[in-house]
Amino acid sequence: MNEPSPNSTDSASQPFTPKFDAAGLIPAIVQDASSGEVLMFAWMNREAFELTASTRLAHYYSRSRGKLWKKGETSGHTQEVESLRIDCDQDVLLLRVKQHGAACHTGYRSCFYREIVAIDNSVPILHVCEKEKFFDPAEVYNLRQS
Amino acid sequence: MNEPSPNSTDSASQPFTPKFDAAGLIPAIVQDASSGEVLMFAWMNREAFELTASTRLAHYYSRSRGKLWKKGETSGHTQEVESLRIDCDQDVLLLRVKQHGAACHTGYRSCFYREIVAIDNSVPILHVCEKEKFFDPAEVYNLRQS
Repeated sequence: MNEPSPNSTDSASQPFTPKFDAAGLIPAIVQDASSGEVLMFAWMNREAFELTASTRLAHYYSRSRGKLWKKGETSGHTQEVESLRIDCDQDVLLLRVKQHGAACHTGYRSCFYREIVAIDNSVPILHVCEKEKFFDPAEVYNLRQS
Repeated sequence: MNEPSPNSTDSASQPFTPKFDAAGLIPAIVQDASSGEVLMFAWMNREAFELTASTRLAHYYSRSRGKLWKKGETSGHTQEVESLRIDCDQDVLLLRVKQHGAACHTGYRSCFYREIVAIDNSVPILHVCEKEKFFDPAEVYNLRQS
């Protein structure tokens, strides 16, 4: 291992110059601040980032619905932002959050509840790794007939 | 908290149908398998995914260079893949890896070595959170005059 060399770009404080893509979006990885579990992945536009930063509650931009959304606005499963990081190229965000309820709309705590297996000599399949759902999406999103 | 309801899509094994975007790419989040630290974010095309799955060494697709690359091909800092997960929509991958050396080309262990601070009432700046670099990029990438 080599000793690091002095480098002017490595000073304690550096300018924040986030790079939004051609569609005005930046990817955001969301991690549970206490367990380290990766909970979800989403996109932010500048407005979503600014709302997230100012309210400390995660906001994203839905590409499919074409609009800003506050995480948990329907389910109540909000994300309190404990820290915001950005990567070396300033084109990806990492949010460390306190997740209320569950992150995934399926009811699982994390969106990454399935592992890809049997990938060497056969067609890959997915195995559900999580033991149980945290909530019932039919109930939370009012999909049930009453 | 509600009890989960039976749901046919939640059986133990499910089909693997990854969704590559219009450019043929899928995002990949890379996490240290032992510490849980988020190390980096990159993109894969189908070939990169298949090479990753078959060799258990992480391969990605560089959008800037327009080509496939094996992580660590220059630095030697390869990533042994311990597990591959996919999210609820099957359009984002999560790799849990054993990272040899450091993940970031800057020399830091993780690409997310800076926190965005002072975001409430002032212009945000970045603070370097990591104490030291793992390697000297000038030396590893042969950028030094000899």
